[in-house]
Amino acid sequence: MTDKAPWITHRPELRVLDCTVRDGGLMNDHQFSVEFVTAVYQACLASGIDYMEVGYKNSHELFPDDAFGLWRHSDEESIRKAVGDHDSAATGLKLSVMADAGKSDWAKQIGPAAESVVDMVRVTFYGHQVPEAVEMIHHAHDMGYETSANLMAVTVVSDTEIDAMLEAIAGTPVGTMVIVDSYGHLYREQLSLLYERYSAGLADTDIEIGIHAHNNLQLGFANTIEAIVLGATRADATIGGLGRGAGNCPMELLLGFLRNPKFDQRPMISALQHHIEPMRSQINWGPSIPYHITGQMNRHPRAAIEWLDGESAADWVSFYDKEFGDA
Amino acid sequence: MTDKAPWITHRPELRVLDCTVRDGGLMNDHQFSVEFVTAVYQACLASGIDYMEVGYKNSHELFPDDAFGLWRHSDEESIRKAVGDHDSAATGLKLSVMADAGKSDWAKQIGPAAESVVDMVRVTFYGHQVPEAVEMIHHAHDMGYETSANLMAVTVVSDTEIDAMLEAIAGTPVGTMVIVDSYGHLYREQLSLLYERYSAGLADTDIEIGIHAHNNLQLGFANTIEAIVLGATRADATIGGLGRGAGNCPMELLLGFLRNPKFDQRPMISALQHHIEPMRSQINWGPSIPYHITGQMNRHPRAAIEWLDGESAADWVSFYDKEFGDA
Repeated sequence: MTDKAPWITHRPELRVLDCTVRDGGLMNDHQFSVEFVTAVYQACLASGIDYMEVGYKNSHELFPDDAFGLWRHSDEESIRKAVGDHDSAATGLKLSVMADAGKSDWAKQIGPAAESVVDMVRVTFYGHQVPEAVEMIHHAHDMGYETSANLMAVTVVSDTEIDAMLEAIAGTPVGTMVIVDSYGHLYREQLSLLYERYSAGLADTDIEIGIHAHNNLQLGFANTIEAIVLGATRADATIGGLGRGAGNCPMELLLGFLRNPKFDQRPMISALQHHIEPMRSQINWGPSIPYHITGQMNRHPRAAIEWLDGESAADWVSFYDKEFGDA
Repeated sequence: MTDKAPWITHRPELRVLDCTVRDGGLMNDHQFSVEFVTAVYQACLASGIDYMEVGYKNSHELFPDDAFGLWRHSDEESIRKAVGDHDSAATGLKLSVMADAGKSDWAKQIGPAAESVVDMVRVTFYGHQVPEAVEMIHHAHDMGYETSANLMAVTVVSDTEIDAMLEAIAGTPVGTMVIVDSYGHLYREQLSLLYERYSAGLADTDIEIGIHAHNNLQLGFANTIEAIVLGATRADATIGGLGRGAGNCPMELLLGFLRNPKFDQRPMISALQHHIEPMRSQINWGPSIPYHITGQMNRHPRAAIEWLDGESAADWVSFYDKEFGDA
């Protein structure tokens, strides 16, 4: 600790990824209109964002077209409806898709990068899916994409298994490994230790470390900037924090924190005002007591999501009693 | 940094202060009913809170009775209406009042502690009011109260002036010095430096350090636990974060973080559900874009409060343009 003020400078290598459509779509089965996705895309362009995640590459069989919106499958023609013949070199904005182990026909759905407007494939997996994730990373890399490895729900994976996972990932051509706090459970000290663990496990590689935080304990933004302070070079955020359950790190707060003059929070505030907030009547995201409770209990937010969709939504004490009674 | 897990232990000396009524009252001119204050009091008792701040000791002349509620003056008989003949020794809960330099007839309003249910007087002051604050601390101490010194809006006070303030306060019999981020402007690295500055300035004393954070940047909780990790032994919070503008560190989150088994978050969640949330239709507190903007700009939240009370409340982009245009 010095008397210098590191927060007034910036690290030019830091990359920001917007996952508003991808994570927010978990709250409405990705039933966003093309116009909405175009609006997010325009905001990303205007704000100087580095990556925009347009959705999942999930299986059409497991997630049928009549129940899920376009952004659950992110077929090439769907993406182009929203972004046209997007040019990442000319605009400075790259597009990403997310592919889940176990939920994606990745060998079929992920074709050559040269034929796609997509630049990056982010591979997500749970602790027991590391072997498939490694295959997926190799496939996407061979197809010409930048790649990212996102171990979900890291707070329920043991340190020993995290170390083994990192060793497996270190042996792949992946570009980034993301710390994913799916349950919004991490306090700052815990995040610091996790960052050290990821950093140590990847020390002999060029793999960058990213952060994807959730806001159950109202720490989504705090944990994101803490990871950046620790050295993370990739940060995820969403406009207005739109995302599953308590939501994500709010993009407008993150851009306000960053000092790189290429970032501009105003287009994000405008998109929030005109496109995101108007959805509050249909999508119920953001911090509230039920999410605080699942976050604190280190549990998937689904019980809270169901509670908040039910008749007793405002009866937080009963939810507290139920969750702690289950403990 | 070690592999130990400091967050699963606790420091028995940590004291939590509830300032729901005092800080929340800034949003409704302290027009809370006696029943409401009693409900907060009962929640504090049931949750194991150490201090409850019942209101301000502000001048009846400057804040006339026909415009302000009971908790702006916190006369002895008003407090007793809500808490009866409260016994701090028997209950473990102490009561505090806040007295502002320049706004309090403190020599008249603060009588002997032996005749009051109040245990602590917290003296608040701006950077230019240090001499009056020192007199107020001496007076309250001489009357038999525990005392606290709260320099407000510390983020607009120069380091040199902070050092001089600390030197003046170090010479008083005050028990606690609180870091007060009135504008909700501090990022974690800035808070760490401030904590070090306060700690160094008070090194030769027994004065404890406290934290009072606001939530403009959604960092109220994060900054509070960070100060605790750094060594602060006094933390302020409010139920549901009820407080001026973006509000305060939410008590229920803080109690969920603390590991001292004497604390119980359930009564706070119940009070939130039954007494605080029902006021949302009258009191508009909590994080939103206008508060984010004043916080980021290191400004008093009053412009945001006025904006959110006006016809253009939902036009955040115009507020952004106005505030940054004023810069």
